[in-house]
Amino acid sequence: MDIVIPIFDDFTALDAIGPYEVLSRVGGRVRFVAREPGPIRTDNGMLSVIAEASLDDARSPDVVVVPGGVAVRALTSDPVWLDWLRDVHATSTWTTSVCTGSLLLGAAGLLEGLRATSHWLELETLRGYGAEPTGERVVEQGKVITAAGVSAGIDMALTLAARLIGEDGAKAIQLGIEYDPQPPFDCGSVEKADPKLVEAIRRAVSAREAASRERAGV
Amino acid sequence: MDIVIPIFDDFTALDAIGPYEVLSRVGGRVRFVAREPGPIRTDNGMLSVIAEASLDDARSPDVVVVPGGVAVRALTSDPVWLDWLRDVHATSTWTTSVCTGSLLLGAAGLLEGLRATSHWLELETLRGYGAEPTGERVVEQGKVITAAGVSAGIDMALTLAARLIGEDGAKAIQLGIEYDPQPPFDCGSVEKADPKLVEAIRRAVSAREAASRERAGV
Repeated sequence: MDIVIPIFDDFTALDAIGPYEVLSRVGGRVRFVAREPGPIRTDNGMLSVIAEASLDDARSPDVVVVPGGVAVRALTSDPVWLDWLRDVHATSTWTTSVCTGSLLLGAAGLLEGLRATSHWLELETLRGYGAEPTGERVVEQGKVITAAGVSAGIDMALTLAARLIGEDGAKAIQLGIEYDPQPPFDCGSVEKADPKLVEAIRRAVSAREAASRERAGV
Repeated sequence: MDIVIPIFDDFTALDAIGPYEVLSRVGGRVRFVAREPGPIRTDNGMLSVIAEASLDDARSPDVVVVPGGVAVRALTSDPVWLDWLRDVHATSTWTTSVCTGSLLLGAAGLLEGLRATSHWLELETLRGYGAEPTGERVVEQGKVITAAGVSAGIDMALTLAARLIGEDGAKAIQLGIEYDPQPPFDCGSVEKADPKLVEAIRRAVSAREAASRERAGV
């Protein structure tokens, strides 16, 4: 089984590594690929992981997992990425995303008419791609599975593992990675968090994006 | 704030990347370090991440997070690693571990007389280092925090984030990474999993270790 995780500079590490940790245990091979092989840096610049092959070397994966990150916005108008996604989706068994990775699937036209999720800050953006946004954590629609923000990739990958190798196998993986989460706070979703916190994060992100647009002169 | 994650060939990626994703958001700098800088491969050989500096370049971190992995057993008798751990622990604000990373802390003598946790398969090993094993997911003892297997590093890092920057900041991080876990199964700990599954994993791991010892002629 060829499981491919395409990465790009400024991707969010946990979006990719959560699913990798689960899917590396289903009995196939997980490959990190990028436009060109080599070191790829994460969104905060504090870590680089190595892409072992290029997108061209991964034209017919069984499973593709697209992570998110601040670079996604630029990639949604990059024909190399969009063509690659359409290409692999044509023959994949499962096409999946974590966090804003779903915007890339959307931009490639793969979410049209489907319910889908993304990071809570970008849910509405999905609408522009003909998808119906939902706040669910993991959304399965035919062979397309989208996951909510960052950490949701672990839940998505366990759901996918159950499809790939059966529930008993997926349960063994969940116990193997001791996934019995006990978050210290009950604030991990927009529904549960203090509305003031949600608003503060929305404002901070808007301000950052405005500053970034000003720097770019757009 | 200098947050250091020491890695080694055959480490478990999520042990390190879970805490990294949380701690990269507390306002300090997270550095991956290794015996020598350069690419370090994970336990399944499917991924390499880059250590940007050597252990020698990280002699006085504020926070150290030690991941686990199959290599840990060898490192527990490696004086370079044990001396480094003792050294950084002498001046650290927080010394932490995920999964079998606690065995390294134990081997360095840092858990003597403390309650501590580890991956459920290795809990009893802690006793040999003078620690009192506990099945709790995150165990805080003075400035030492140990976490259970693999995914528990996320819970540990959020707990630590609350100590470093306060609860409001930690809650913002938890919402930012949308950590509202919904595992598809309720089997992520020894207490919750089917005893047959637990036994099957114990047997498989014992068989693998016996085969490995036979190959090594010990």
